[in-house]
Amino acid sequence: MIETTIIKVHGYHLDLYGHVNNTRYLEFLEEARWNIKEKYFDFPEVHEQGFGFVVVHTSINYRNPASLGDTLEIRTNVLRIGNKSATFRHEIYLQGTTKLIADAEVTFVIVNLATGKAISITGEWRAKLDLLQNN
Amino acid sequence: MIETTIIKVHGYHLDLYGHVNNTRYLEFLEEARWNIKEKYFDFPEVHEQGFGFVVVHTSINYRNPASLGDTLEIRTNVLRIGNKSATFRHEIYLQGTTKLIADAEVTFVIVNLATGKAISITGEWRAKLDLLQNN
Amino acid sequence: MIETTIIKVHGYHLDLYGHVNNTRYLEFLEEARWNIKEKYFDFPEVHEQGFGFVVVHTSINYRNPASLGDTLEIRTNVLRIGNKSATFRHEIYLQGTTKLIADAEVTFVIVNLATGKAISITGEWRAKLDLLQNN
Amino acid sequence: MIETTIIKVHGYHLDLYGHVNNTRYLEFLEEARWNIKEKYFDFPEVHEQGFGFVVVHTSINYRNPASLGDTLEIRTNVLRIGNKSATFRHEIYLQGTTKLIADAEVTFVIVNLATGKAISITGEWRAKLDLLQNN
Repeated sequence: MIETTIIKVHGYHLDLYGHVNNTRYLEFLEEARWNIKEKYFDFPEVHEQGFGFVVVHTSINYRNPASLGDTLEIRTNVLRIGNKSATFRHEIYLQGTTKLIADAEVTFVIVNLATGKAISITGEWRAKLDLLQNN
Repeated sequence: MIETTIIKVHGYHLDLYGHVNNTRYLEFLEEARWNIKEKYFDFPEVHEQGFGFVVVHTSINYRNPASLGDTLEIRTNVLRIGNKSATFRHEIYLQGTTKLIADAEVTFVIVNLATGKAISITGEWRAKLDLLQNN
Repeated sequence: MIETTIIKVHGYHLDLYGHVNNTRYLEFLEEARWNIKEKYFDFPEVHEQGFGFVVVHTSINYRNPASLGDTLEIRTNVLRIGNKSATFRHEIYLQGTTKLIADAEVTFVIVNLATGKAISITGEWRAKLDLLQNN
Repeated sequence: MIETTIIKVHGYHLDLYGHVNNTRYLEFLEEARWNIKEKYFDFPEVHEQGFGFVVVHTSINYRNPASLGDTLEIRTNVLRIGNKSATFRHEIYLQGTTKLIADAEVTFVIVNLATGKAISITGEWRAKLDLLQNN
């Protein structure tokens, strides 16, 4: 399953070059993952039960600049599921085109907020991530 | 006319108190105004023609905290239109309720980007702002 | 006492107009107030003891644009102290000049984080705010 | 040469977990690089002459959480210099300790803003980057 989040580029996203600033894309990716956490993982309830997704690694390639008024389509799926971590793959396209604006891999752990420790990704957690892995 | 923008509160909007940080609301209001600038004022074309809306004053009351998972409904209209400036009124509600999260007045000028000067708000500019003033 | 915070304007602070975006100034003001909270109010210890400063109103005038490389000097003092709220006054100058970039009033309450209620501003709280009020 | 930038962690840097949010670190790294661009590369003059550093890739590991009141020390040097791109290495330590909070590699090109094309990294550009490469 590939999940899609749409972002419209507005003036406060841009920097002195008139393009979306490299730092802002990480917020766009956060938005994409929160949409998934709500749809698949019952956030915010899961947060109240004491679990959180914590990012441990991000790798992002900036391929083409995005400008005022561009509509971005962020396509997200799961690339890998390990014992204690998993990795999202994000591709940001200019909507309706094959123009890749940026692509990223974001590795996260699921933390028991009471202990601060990463839990094993098993059972329901893994089943839901599996849904996002098989395309 | 009152225009509505919906924002879902996600983890990166929150601060150490678990509530949307006071600074973040200004980005939510920017989002609401950009939606209006696209719908009523033909942005980004108008930007390319050399005009921009520049904020000169913001006054915001934070009424109730917003938390993870809240859906915010930003209702925006025009409060006043002067010779060279106009004022948006924003009310941010918890969606589907009468609970007011924040309300703000944002005064802006329309700047000719080539000269850096505010223009008189007449003709089409005023006509479009009028649409947003009459409720 | 007037407390001063220095901010250097960098590329990621700017928006499509090449000027510091209106939303970013609120972060600059947060930075100025956190410096004061550390210097006068023993943050972060006070936060761990269960108290926080929560902004209830911000009013800001944007007087002149700030651009890449500008050094901003934020001068902050206390304008008013009420029973349950107090107001900071911030003036942002282009350093070494009398050119006012922005000025703001920010009203806050001191919240007991356990109850979520504003406390009365008395005793040591008031004494410290008094230091920042008398110029 | 290793250049150092100091950042104090304040309340608006934190997210719902009480830790610096993963997106915010990219702004901290931007701050570190802008300090270098001013010190070594005569920004903002170089920007006015029509050149900009544009990030093409960022890879960041989040090693340990940073919390309210932490002082972060960002140590930055140049890792690699290619024909048309170069790579900064950033290490973020809890100041005065060997505790690594995050480390990152950021690859950038120098763009001629008039053409939008990356220039060859030769002459003075390379000489200055060399200073930051040799430790």
